[in-house]
Amino acid sequence: MSRDPSHDILFEPVRIGPVTAPNRFYQVPHCTGMGWMRPRTLAAMRGVKAEGGWGVVCTEYNSIHPTSDDLPHPSASLWDMSDVRAHTLMTEAVHAHGSLAGAELWYGGARTPNMMTRLPPMDLGSVPNLAGHPYQTRAMDKSDIRQFRHWHKRAALRARDAGFDIVYVYATHGYLISNFLNPRINTRGDEYGGSLENRVRLVRELIADTKDAVGDRCAVAVRFSADEEGGSDGHPVWGERRDMFAMLAELPDLWDINIADYSLEMGVSRFVKEGALEPYMTWVKSVTTKPVVTVGRFTSPDTMAAQVRRGIVDFIGAARPSIADPFLPRKIEEGRLSAIRECIGCNICYSGDSLGVPIRCTQNPTMGEEWRRGWHPERIAPQGSAAHVLIVGAGPAGLEAARALGARGYRVTLAEATRDLGGRVLREAGLPGLREYIRVRDYREQALRDMPNVEIFRESRLTAQDVLDVGADHVAIATGAQWRKDVFDGEVFQSVAEGAADAHILTPDDIMAGRLPDGPTVVYDGDGYYMGGVLAERLRMAGLEVTLATPDDSLSRWAGNTAERWRVRRHLQGLGVRFEPAREIAGFDGRAVVLPCAYGGAELTVAASHLVMVSARRPEDGLYHDLCAMAGPLPFTLTRIGDCEAPAIIAAAVHAGHRYAQELDAPVDPDLPLKHDRIDVGAPGGAA
Amino acid sequence: MSRDPSHDILFEPVRIGPVTAPNRFYQVPHCTGMGWMRPRTLAAMRGVKAEGGWGVVCTEYNSIHPTSDDLPHPSASLWDMSDVRAHTLMTEAVHAHGSLAGAELWYGGARTPNMMTRLPPMDLGSVPNLAGHPYQTRAMDKSDIRQFRHWHKRAALRARDAGFDIVYVYATHGYLISNFLNPRINTRGDEYGGSLENRVRLVRELIADTKDAVGDRCAVAVRFSADEEGGSDGHPVWGERRDMFAMLAELPDLWDINIADYSLEMGVSRFVKEGALEPYMTWVKSVTTKPVVTVGRFTSPDTMAAQVRRGIVDFIGAARPSIADPFLPRKIEEGRLSAIRECIGCNICYSGDSLGVPIRCTQNPTMGEEWRRGWHPERIAPQGSAAHVLIVGAGPAGLEAARALGARGYRVTLAEATRDLGGRVLREAGLPGLREYIRVRDYREQALRDMPNVEIFRESRLTAQDVLDVGADHVAIATGAQWRKDVFDGEVFQSVAEGAADAHILTPDDIMAGRLPDGPTVVYDGDGYYMGGVLAERLRMAGLEVTLATPDDSLSRWAGNTAERWRVRRHLQGLGVRFEPAREIAGFDGRAVVLPCAYGGAELTVAASHLVMVSARRPEDGLYHDLCAMAGPLPFTLTRIGDCEAPAIIAAAVHAGHRYAQELDAPVDPDLPLKHDRIDVGAPGGAA
Repeated sequence: MSRDPSHDILFEPVRIGPVTAPNRFYQVPHCTGMGWMRPRTLAAMRGVKAEGGWGVVCTEYNSIHPTSDDLPHPSASLWDMSDVRAHTLMTEAVHAHGSLAGAELWYGGARTPNMMTRLPPMDLGSVPNLAGHPYQTRAMDKSDIRQFRHWHKRAALRARDAGFDIVYVYATHGYLISNFLNPRINTRGDEYGGSLENRVRLVRELIADTKDAVGDRCAVAVRFSADEEGGSDGHPVWGERRDMFAMLAELPDLWDINIADYSLEMGVSRFVKEGALEPYMTWVKSVTTKPVVTVGRFTSPDTMAAQVRRGIVDFIGAARPSIADPFLPRKIEEGRLSAIRECIGCNICYSGDSLGVPIRCTQNPTMGEEWRRGWHPERIAPQGSAAHVLIVGAGPAGLEAARALGARGYRVTLAEATRDLGGRVLREAGLPGLREYIRVRDYREQALRDMPNVEIFRESRLTAQDVLDVGADHVAIATGAQWRKDVFDGEVFQSVAEGAADAHILTPDDIMAGRLPDGPTVVYDGDGYYMGGVLAERLRMAGLEVTLATPDDSLSRWAGNTAERWRVRRHLQGLGVRFEPAREIAGFDGRAVVLPCAYGGAELTVAASHLVMVSARRPEDGLYHDLCAMAGPLPFTLTRIGDCEAPAIIAAAVHAGHRYAQELDAPVDPDLPLKHDRIDVGAPGGAA
Repeated sequence: MSRDPSHDILFEPVRIGPVTAPNRFYQVPHCTGMGWMRPRTLAAMRGVKAEGGWGVVCTEYNSIHPTSDDLPHPSASLWDMSDVRAHTLMTEAVHAHGSLAGAELWYGGARTPNMMTRLPPMDLGSVPNLAGHPYQTRAMDKSDIRQFRHWHKRAALRARDAGFDIVYVYATHGYLISNFLNPRINTRGDEYGGSLENRVRLVRELIADTKDAVGDRCAVAVRFSADEEGGSDGHPVWGERRDMFAMLAELPDLWDINIADYSLEMGVSRFVKEGALEPYMTWVKSVTTKPVVTVGRFTSPDTMAAQVRRGIVDFIGAARPSIADPFLPRKIEEGRLSAIRECIGCNICYSGDSLGVPIRCTQNPTMGEEWRRGWHPERIAPQGSAAHVLIVGAGPAGLEAARALGARGYRVTLAEATRDLGGRVLREAGLPGLREYIRVRDYREQALRDMPNVEIFRESRLTAQDVLDVGADHVAIATGAQWRKDVFDGEVFQSVAEGAADAHILTPDDIMAGRLPDGPTVVYDGDGYYMGGVLAERLRMAGLEVTLATPDDSLSRWAGNTAERWRVRRHLQGLGVRFEPAREIAGFDGRAVVLPCAYGGAELTVAASHLVMVSARRPEDGLYHDLCAMAGPLPFTLTRIGDCEAPAIIAAAVHAGHRYAQELDAPVDPDLPLKHDRIDVGAPGGAA
């Protein structure tokens, strides 16, 4: 394969002030749930991005001072020499592949409660914490501004000392610096507030401070919002942003452009598609001669090249596409487009930072595992034996196991009960907004096509005897899970059907198979992630009267971690879905659903001819247990993987399939199956 | 002072299997937000407890294997030698004071999503995660039980190797082991389920395994619930628990008894008072000869001694009282009862684990600061100069600053505008359920009484000129904050009053001063912690019709972190408070409050003659700014502390006052004001 010449433009080097990026692929700053907590994990992950061809690889947000502490969200930091040492691991890993390393300096202001350091955060006024913690900021006076500039410069110097090539002034996303720009917020009476000229003063000074400190060796980038406030999607509210930008246009070496609505900028694919920021970018390149980058969950090289050719951007910025496929640039460069593992826009990556745990990715099971498990997104150890592996079930776990084992050179037989591959991914991708989820299957199905050592049998539902007859050396059962009709009360599953009502209770599997209710329906969401809301939408679009009830206070509660909860509720409200939060479920008789208050208050009865239960899943482990129950020792190793072992998110199934493939013939110690990036008080270098 | 002889019984040594506790003060396992993440911070903190006289000092919950990973909640762990080294820091710190160190082994089961390790958690069945994450468990088979016992034994050996004297089998709180005991959950058909005999098998085996592994050197404790399920407060539902206990009664060396309702066991003082577990303990000591410990937020030595004398317990268990006053035992021993810093039961300590940040304490500002800031709850450096310090304002920040500076030997003048000391603490303690908050003042007022170098002026509202006239060398402004009438929209504060309605808008300060509405009232809670709910209760108790509206989906949202949110809502519902979540506020005209939907849905209008705004606070910093504005350099250092600088929780104000006192004449580097317990990839031993 060779590269499509129309993509050549993506591989031109681009000068950024005193440094030069080897190509136009730019991994913008993105959080990882690692930061200062997991420096070795982080460095290995960023290094793989550089190896995969990202010409610029940036950090996540780096706190410049303990008065900006975002814990439990794991930011990076540039407080001291310990940080310099930690970041040096990353810059060396990035430089080893000829890429540039960028450091985003950050001060949270009213967005950080400083619950670790216990120091008051500073912002323009004394305002409530914007993440809802009971800690207000301290209003900054002139000496605070001087102090802030000093801290920013000091952090820039540390970034330089750690080997970074690009240093950011982070002037967007509602953090402190952007509040100085904001005409509503910044009504200061001194030279830092009021007029436009005064409000840009701090950014201007920070750019000058940073250039002064590190400009001889590092490029200075500014992250800046092109629009003034979040309007309706794709319709920018410019306000004075163009004038503001014009005043600063030639000062930094690079512009990293964002928009005001974060839930659009990094929106889930359910609501936001590729290239959604383009309407916001129309004038940017016409006002500056400096290189410009922005994001857009780009996975199509044609779209990328067109963005550059049409003068929208100079760099293709990416966070999520670089997580799903760290080798995206290399694959385009080598013309291996069908090998691209496209981001599905589920935002499970973002949930790591939301929750304070390391990043994960649905498409890329090696994300975050580069250091601690030694996994690589493209390379995997050759087979440990000339064994034959049977995988039963071609859902996300089975497909990934087959793909990775195939890549290792094993002889693989993949048996799927139905005609199409994909399992739950195929089913869910048919639901409103989830179309891109099919990429989980498509990438793997495509990869399997090129593997002569993997044989796929469709419409092959195997019995235990069938499995024995295959004569494999290893058998992985990846038969998935089925949604249950009952509800979990915290201890046991309880039926909610009264009398003959059971026939009127449906599950997500029914809906996904096209078995729809034909009357008023209650969707009971005991799961709390996306499925309940998506099904409510599906049924509402079919013209049904829909009530979405949940024991949680919030609709699609867990989707708060993927930054889509607010959009989900707004969207469903707009469709006319009725919403009953804080409701348990006591029974359904075919005519009405009884919904007790989750806090012991009054019971509610909702008339409904059908009930859709979104509660929990039952592993489809019958075949596994049939095999376990066979007489005598089995002539193969037997393993459950994915939902068949423990139903969870798609990312967990893909990860489980990959782990099975990685660990076959290379068993890990079951007592301690992974390294742990943490303090070791006794070991040199703190290595665990 | 000398000890009250009736308290002597508390200082008897007690044998626990192969070890002997020096007294009856037993710090039970409690979480700290430190765990494996912050070993040095943790060891120093636990060491101070031993120094303060706790005869037994335990860890928090120690994961025995990566399939039990509670992140973002920071558990401890006993996975490998790195853990042994970390824990050795703690056991050495505890042994240095002659106390015993206990390690709680733990396996979360369906309570842990394993979002760090990405391994499926195991429980009896495949059930949803009980913390609401989208990860089900894998159902345990017999080989899993064998594996689990192996991991438990392995962790016990590591605990021994780390120097622990007591090792726990943790069989309560809904974690895996307790699920085996539960007759509803454990309906296994094999020898581990079904009958009572079968259900206790695993605990019996774990006790035997642990004794076998470490029993020659370590005592084996079992943490066990005395009741079967949460009933109404103080009315145990025993079920079969007594029979179950009798079957195991003589097997371990110590019983640590809990109850089924965690929100009662560690209930906030708003709902639960000292010694609340006693009704649950009636039969326990009569069924075993082994020593028994339980908790009860005990701070009264008379109550403690009576508990022992009446045969309820052998040890006084404590988590929160040992956090508020690590020197509680020593103070009782020395008869210095008035020096006890009593826990106020606010549960802010627990929020550290909830949120994944280090522990803090309202009463004890040194909690968690022992290592990183070098603070000690009882000792403080003598004065750095013969200076005179003026503190303006005797709220929590001013009182603590005066107390700590007084302890350092400074000449201190404390000026309070009103007649009584306490500031916000005094005001809030008058609200329903918050009576114990006054302990924040009482401890400090008592301490100040014994300090001849501290002079208190009441009813002394100072002007800037007054401050100058005092002639102090250092001035701290601790004038607190006032609640605002307007609402913060995320950028600016907006008035909600239309026309003359402003006079009908009240703030928490009004209510606390006794200025109550006289008609139907909307309490608008834009704050989200306890104040909104408490005021709704206050007004409802005054006979008013009350609607509690909030932009959040949950009532008293942040109180979820202090484990009281559920009780708050249930309690207020019971009182007849009407609840309107997910509501913004648009206006109030004296007759009705307009409440737009927070998600863009339909607006709601609630008829009300009064509106109570619980939104944000305005620092009372007029005096500070008056002083800043005076001509020429001030003849003293000038500092704002507490709510006057940045309004926050009471714990933050006390901490700020203490920090001011600690850092006077001993300035810390403003660029890096504290040590950081984290990985350092370059330094020996990983010390930051």
